[in-house]
Amino acid sequence: MNFAPRRGIEDQTLHKKTDPRMIRLYHFPLSPFCRKVRLTLAEKRLEVELIEERYWEPSPDFLRRNPAGKVPVLRIENKVLSESQAICEYLEEAYPNPSLMPRDIDMRFEVRRLCAWFDDKFHAEVTSKLLYERVNKKIMAHGYPDSKAVKSGAGRIKYHLDYLGWLLDQRRWLAGDVMTLADVTAAAHISCLDYISDVDWNRNATVKDWYAKIKSRPSFRTLLADQVPGFPPPAHYADLDF
Amino acid sequence: MNFAPRRGIEDQTLHKKTDPRMIRLYHFPLSPFCRKVRLTLAEKRLEVELIEERYWEPSPDFLRRNPAGKVPVLRIENKVLSESQAICEYLEEAYPNPSLMPRDIDMRFEVRRLCAWFDDKFHAEVTSKLLYERVNKKIMAHGYPDSKAVKSGAGRIKYHLDYLGWLLDQRRWLAGDVMTLADVTAAAHISCLDYISDVDWNRNATVKDWYAKIKSRPSFRTLLADQVPGFPPPAHYADLDF
Repeated sequence: MNFAPRRGIEDQTLHKKTDPRMIRLYHFPLSPFCRKVRLTLAEKRLEVELIEERYWEPSPDFLRRNPAGKVPVLRIENKVLSESQAICEYLEEAYPNPSLMPRDIDMRFEVRRLCAWFDDKFHAEVTSKLLYERVNKKIMAHGYPDSKAVKSGAGRIKYHLDYLGWLLDQRRWLAGDVMTLADVTAAAHISCLDYISDVDWNRNATVKDWYAKIKSRPSFRTLLADQVPGFPPPAHYADLDF
Repeated sequence: MNFAPRRGIEDQTLHKKTDPRMIRLYHFPLSPFCRKVRLTLAEKRLEVELIEERYWEPSPDFLRRNPAGKVPVLRIENKVLSESQAICEYLEEAYPNPSLMPRDIDMRFEVRRLCAWFDDKFHAEVTSKLLYERVNKKIMAHGYPDSKAVKSGAGRIKYHLDYLGWLLDQRRWLAGDVMTLADVTAAAHISCLDYISDVDWNRNATVKDWYAKIKSRPSFRTLLADQVPGFPPPAHYADLDF
């Protein structure tokens, strides 16, 4: 078995026609992990060519790029990178300005702890229970939403919004006084749930203010323009005055 | 609701009696994420007091320390840290020697990608299907192993051993020519499965050599001495000539 991520024939052809410095992201619009990488690239003002990947029906070309069979996959400087947190840490080290990681060791820990909180705990308790049940299952033709899971996700998101509110009562941004990868990660997850109207913006004014602030950033525009066929976003989704 | 991780009364009392510089890890012996932190601490020659935590019956004290209700939780320099990858990155930055992270940006990416591979993919496809079904369910009194899950885990571990073998055909250690957090993470997961005899050491001689090398390190001794009541390890588990 060959596990090497490498460009397929089709890619090599395209590669000849396009700028080799071009960054390309294989993604799915409502994947919080892809959105995290898209926001990080945009905050660092790196232009990227987005290629939508139906990762649940992986093509041999896609599996060649990432043996884990997941999105996001980033092609940059002739490297093929996977795993969103590892990609974002790489982008931070390779393109340190503007920075999404503080210099202080304790704050860096807090950023990484919160990234894991959203990518792991929030993802398991909320994103997978609401977004994956309501949207992904239908797109992937994997059956109908499990109402018990949806109910559980709808309950748990309240706890997480309260946790965000508690953090933001003490800090301007999630990990401290500057915007970091923790805010990017949290906003990436929450924006996916906002796309399907699953965030109660009346629950906590501080959380709403924080989201309004990050949503207004130029880096967020690409996310607000997303359209998933069969799932039109609600009017407030792209509205900066929601 | 108060989400602040803080020391409980019992901890504060103990704190007065013990050296405040003492590092304390709340852990569970067969948790791969705790083992990853234990190995990292030991590689950096940091002494730690281990406190076993039955995290599935969380005490108010434990939830005070980590609102996520998970192990590992590390108390160090009056800080309370959770999330294994964030903890290990913190330890690397606070105690850089001996190092478990290379300096080269591309290699750092590869280390983090492999950590995520094991903590995420291997954990979901193998650890949770074999260890959690066979051991954790019984300890937590959560019913009987799901034979379909066990069968799936037993099938998938072969793929992962092949992937390790493929990596090790090109490199001395998993991410390159030096031992890194990637090896620590992989060995943390695999050692838990070896404790329940779920690793077929005849499958790949290169993988077996790599594991023998890491198992012989002084940092591994604490793991080899682990005993979980009701689940005695097989004879080969602690044998360096397995």
